[in-house]
Amino acid sequence: MSKARVEAFSDGVIAVAITLLVCNLHVPDPSRSVSLAHRLGEQWPSYAAYIVSFLTIGIIWINHHAMLQRLVSVDHAILVLNLLLLLTIGALPFTTALMATYLKAAHGQHLAAVIYGGSFLALSIAFFAMHRHMLLSKQHLLHEHLTPTVRRQVLTRNAAGLLPYLVATLGGILTPYLTLAICGLVAIFYAPPRRDESGGA
Amino acid sequence: MSKARVEAFSDGVIAVAITLLVCNLHVPDPSRSVSLAHRLGEQWPSYAAYIVSFLTIGIIWINHHAMLQRLVSVDHAILVLNLLLLLTIGALPFTTALMATYLKAAHGQHLAAVIYGGSFLALSIAFFAMHRHMLLSKQHLLHEHLTPTVRRQVLTRNAAGLLPYLVATLGGILTPYLTLAICGLVAIFYAPPRRDESGGA
Amino acid sequence: MSKARVEAFSDGVIAVAITLLVCNLHVPDPSRSVSLAHRLGEQWPSYAAYIVSFLTIGIIWINHHAMLQRLVSVDHAILVLNLLLLLTIGALPFTTALMATYLKAAHGQHLAAVIYGGSFLALSIAFFAMHRHMLLSKQHLLHEHLTPTVRRQVLTRNAAGLLPYLVATLGGILTPYLTLAICGLVAIFYAPPRRDESGGA
Amino acid sequence: MSKARVEAFSDGVIAVAITLLVCNLHVPDPSRSVSLAHRLGEQWPSYAAYIVSFLTIGIIWINHHAMLQRLVSVDHAILVLNLLLLLTIGALPFTTALMATYLKAAHGQHLAAVIYGGSFLALSIAFFAMHRHMLLSKQHLLHEHLTPTVRRQVLTRNAAGLLPYLVATLGGILTPYLTLAICGLVAIFYAPPRRDESGGA
Repeated sequence: MSKARVEAFSDGVIAVAITLLVCNLHVPDPSRSVSLAHRLGEQWPSYAAYIVSFLTIGIIWINHHAMLQRLVSVDHAILVLNLLLLLTIGALPFTTALMATYLKAAHGQHLAAVIYGGSFLALSIAFFAMHRHMLLSKQHLLHEHLTPTVRRQVLTRNAAGLLPYLVATLGGILTPYLTLAICGLVAIFYAPPRRDESGGA
Repeated sequence: MSKARVEAFSDGVIAVAITLLVCNLHVPDPSRSVSLAHRLGEQWPSYAAYIVSFLTIGIIWINHHAMLQRLVSVDHAILVLNLLLLLTIGALPFTTALMATYLKAAHGQHLAAVIYGGSFLALSIAFFAMHRHMLLSKQHLLHEHLTPTVRRQVLTRNAAGLLPYLVATLGGILTPYLTLAICGLVAIFYAPPRRDESGGA
Repeated sequence: MSKARVEAFSDGVIAVAITLLVCNLHVPDPSRSVSLAHRLGEQWPSYAAYIVSFLTIGIIWINHHAMLQRLVSVDHAILVLNLLLLLTIGALPFTTALMATYLKAAHGQHLAAVIYGGSFLALSIAFFAMHRHMLLSKQHLLHEHLTPTVRRQVLTRNAAGLLPYLVATLGGILTPYLTLAICGLVAIFYAPPRRDESGGA
Repeated sequence: MSKARVEAFSDGVIAVAITLLVCNLHVPDPSRSVSLAHRLGEQWPSYAAYIVSFLTIGIIWINHHAMLQRLVSVDHAILVLNLLLLLTIGALPFTTALMATYLKAAHGQHLAAVIYGGSFLALSIAFFAMHRHMLLSKQHLLHEHLTPTVRRQVLTRNAAGLLPYLVATLGGILTPYLTLAICGLVAIFYAPPRRDESGGA
């Protein structure tokens, strides 16, 4: 099966998920007497969560592209692993809304943060599982032969990408701000130009 | 007419439908005093229906891809049958929301389950109708010549795929949990690697 | 400018618009005591409008594809006309929701029907304007040379496609059911296989 | 990294954002006794903002296409700048809804207009930043060699495109109608055929 339609479908799902994030930004009711500036200011967790989730999904898309570029073609197992990855991406507008709604709440904020961090962790695990399956079990579908050393390096770097999200998830138990901060820092960390253009998650 | 734009449009509709499913996951109101964990726990039918519908649409996409790969080009009749198939896919976010909302309700749960199972059944029938039309009436548009025996085999296997959804639909009369369970099992059944990569619905 | 990205963008907008129609199907509140069957039955205008609009957008997509196939490449004027066409398509989820909400209402139903029919009329006019511009002013961008007679035939057939929507729009003054019926009949009329695969709107 | 998937993803995000604008058009509640005509008439800011934002996003798409056509391939920095550009586009359905809701409000209308104009300004700045980076720092990725004079001309013209949005943003302090009018005029100004098809923002 050709790669092109997998890329097109994945691009579609990721593009819709990233754009649906905007639905979590709510226009304050104009009939209330509180000033608009005050009410928009109160909503800062929504904007912060929007930006963090948008950048994270965007970086996942860049990495997804790089991962699929390794492949000549795809088989059923890769399609199913890709579908599970898309499922975790598709759920992010919900976990983002949960985080934004509860960040400043008096209760539920820890659980919301754990779920938010956990959704990024699940996404990274799904990404890692797909990458690992490709590199270890589907070498005949790869463009270039990778030595066991190179494969191990790529996967180790990929697995290391899970760590910050694990910390972000657990950090939610302390304070949801820690979760948001770590997720934001990860997004910012991956944004600058890198020497290794084909790099992992 | 070339296949490429049909694939692009179908990918688009399927990608939007699968991603819109997340709109059925609702963030509990933080001003209420019930704990967030309890309220998210209460919503488990939404998560279950999300996962079942997401995987089902994803597998339909894989099968749709495989089906279109048989074709060299498309004609008006195939476009219209494809449109009817997309119509049934496009309705799934609604039937999924109906199922999730009514699964635990005191009344309406049987009808909601019948409609949920029925929407998957309608989807499978539309898929079968398109596949059948291609194999029996549009042989000149197919990549490879298929003997009548092979065509019958493919269509029989395809028709067999309708059965579980018929049972799931009727099962809703007994209990909606049966419908959800069967639809979930079908999705799980189609996920593992298969020997026949070009297989039907 | 190449055609490919215009097709991709148009496919994207049309795919999102057609799939967003499902957002107009509302799950009845389970806490009310009226039976689900009764409440879903009451919503039949929503289902009817969903199907009519879905099929109409789908047929527009097919015709849009056929129209763009005439072109070798596109210029700025064609892009802008295409954008206006997409604007009318993008508004359909709103006019469809308006029609569905007001079809059985005691007042406002005539205006809603006129707006619904009028939105299809506007769509057809935008389609016609783009097609006319291509055929009359951008012959150097067309794949094949069309004689003035052929061009006139194509445009006349295209213009004739405006008539039913004009009648549907005006018919809303009498009764909204007439508007819905005509729009539905147009969609059904264009669905069956046609001899001329390259046909207009 | 090839350009094709960047275009596909950008097209996807822009197509979803432009189509999500329709979600800001609300169907009036039919149970209220005020006439539908009156209530739809009251909503004219929503329609005006819909059209202005739709055309602006459409023109950005056209310019985005022209900008990417300069490139042979993309690198990580371009991908990240493109992601920031998409972030500003993805936020437009929110700022458009804000503008439409507050245009006629007794308070908050100035801030809403500044945010609306500011979101277009941010979009233009992101566009300019990406274009500037491409022309000044990534000449090895461009299709054709551009002399420093040509590059300066393109960027100057591009920077000039920021001015109307700066005026529109500041104009919101006077009256939100000025902001809407300027944004609308910019969209109309860019719509007619231009001599320079490869032109900037």
